[in-house]
Amino acid sequence: MDDIDAIGVDWGTSSFRAYRLAADGAVLEARSAAAGILAVDDGDFEGALEHLIGDWLDAHVSAPVVLSGMIGSRNGWVEAPYLPCPASLSDLSTDLHPVTLARGRQIHIAPGVSTRDPGGVPDVMRGEEVQVLGALSFQETGRPRTVCLPGTHSKWVTVCDGRIEDFSTHMTGEAFDVLRRHSILGRTIEHAAWNDAGFLSGVGRSGQPGGFLHHIFGVRASGLFGELPPERAGAFLSGLVIGTEIRAAGPSPAEADQAPIVLIGEQGLVSLYQSALHHLGLATELADRHATALGLWLLSAPLRTART
Amino acid sequence: MDDIDAIGVDWGTSSFRAYRLAADGAVLEARSAAAGILAVDDGDFEGALEHLIGDWLDAHVSAPVVLSGMIGSRNGWVEAPYLPCPASLSDLSTDLHPVTLARGRQIHIAPGVSTRDPGGVPDVMRGEEVQVLGALSFQETGRPRTVCLPGTHSKWVTVCDGRIEDFSTHMTGEAFDVLRRHSILGRTIEHAAWNDAGFLSGVGRSGQPGGFLHHIFGVRASGLFGELPPERAGAFLSGLVIGTEIRAAGPSPAEADQAPIVLIGEQGLVSLYQSALHHLGLATELADRHATALGLWLLSAPLRTART
Repeated sequence: MDDIDAIGVDWGTSSFRAYRLAADGAVLEARSAAAGILAVDDGDFEGALEHLIGDWLDAHVSAPVVLSGMIGSRNGWVEAPYLPCPASLSDLSTDLHPVTLARGRQIHIAPGVSTRDPGGVPDVMRGEEVQVLGALSFQETGRPRTVCLPGTHSKWVTVCDGRIEDFSTHMTGEAFDVLRRHSILGRTIEHAAWNDAGFLSGVGRSGQPGGFLHHIFGVRASGLFGELPPERAGAFLSGLVIGTEIRAAGPSPAEADQAPIVLIGEQGLVSLYQSALHHLGLATELADRHATALGLWLLSAPLRTART
Repeated sequence: MDDIDAIGVDWGTSSFRAYRLAADGAVLEARSAAAGILAVDDGDFEGALEHLIGDWLDAHVSAPVVLSGMIGSRNGWVEAPYLPCPASLSDLSTDLHPVTLARGRQIHIAPGVSTRDPGGVPDVMRGEEVQVLGALSFQETGRPRTVCLPGTHSKWVTVCDGRIEDFSTHMTGEAFDVLRRHSILGRTIEHAAWNDAGFLSGVGRSGQPGGFLHHIFGVRASGLFGELPPERAGAFLSGLVIGTEIRAAGPSPAEADQAPIVLIGEQGLVSLYQSALHHLGLATELADRHATALGLWLLSAPLRTART
């Protein structure tokens, strides 16, 4: 028996992050690689895992190993079907999918979470649920919280009493990217430039009448009129798309009065959302940077208990 | 003096359409080519014009020649600055920009029209204003009409008493195209397939809560859940984007009670908008197919008068 109580892996589409976790959930070592599931050749996930943390598996033979994220999707190692909301970490941990490695060791892959929006349309996430529930694991009870995970496909999650009550996905990052790279808007944008005031001006624009499809054309027309210089246009478009997301997904300032919105994600993007949210009168707080590791540690609880 | 009273040319980004017009505005001959301004090599617009209708210029030496559309833009032959709304055909015709051909003949290029939306952001069109005013030239006075020109950049135009009062542009066709071709949504779409019920279902979806950026992710999630088969997904996305445009740009059914929305454009796209508008309780009528020619004929009025 060593001082390592569990090994947790957050294995997403574009990145791999692994943690050696102590008996109190503390991160003793973290390792990350640009080895997302899309970068794994021929679906050899076992080979990739052995390559990335085989030494940890050797060193800690009895530590439970839990994996969350897209590794549990149809394009991942095994498909671990989505658990419908509301879902807690303990719900997720009762539905872990075991996989036996060639070396005889059993590891466990977590399911994702699904919901249906008011229109009955399904929505899904994989990996973010562990981050969110890890981040809010010491949260007082009875107080609903809103968590925002900005990104290619941003997530807005409502959590209460350790359960994900509901969430919605917004194709914000990807919409920004395809418009910037593949539409006529690219011609009016100096891609390398950034301008904070332009970003906030885009956030403001998103609240004006006309709708998103009109607002994006306005980027072009303003450029033609010399009212939006190319070195400002990229930041403006970013603010416009992010502002559109926040207005559709976020709480109103009145609703958000109770508690700040929790932000989880890559530092640069989180800062951007922070400034957009503040511009719209919404308070924010940053999740603990070990939220994911803590979520994985909590997820492994039944396996740790079973072992003792 | 021959029976031809004017030559009108609608020269856009991707197409060239020319008309030989009689003294009563009737179209005696129409000619079109995939020779939009982007297809003209080295900016040799004069060479292209001579190539396309040089025989008409030879045959009708005293007929005024008017050109509308992107040919008057910064990337066209000469830049004819935008005229701000409200603007009538007679306003446009007092601002024609003369160009003298090598053969000594003078031709005239029409300006575009500009406006500002409630947020103060500029909007522009070139060519559509002639189509719209041509279509409504015999309209009774005192009755405002709404005109929709679907396309890559759809236009919604309000006309009253022969004047364009206001308009807005929506990047609908282009947004659909970049999402379908360049985003993750392409993977859940069988591009060659079409499904009318899927299209209307997308139009309906656009009115549900969640916002556009969430709705487009729903196309992906519904595909994952087997609830939106690939052969239906392209039509659904089309309906979703067009529905989003109509809800933002179009009149409410109550406002539209007075008069049907006039549709101008390519037949297939117009049919699609027709079915979407009807699905949303809005009545439509189709513009006369000679709307553009009639607009060009009316635009040439002062030149025809000056000649006699």
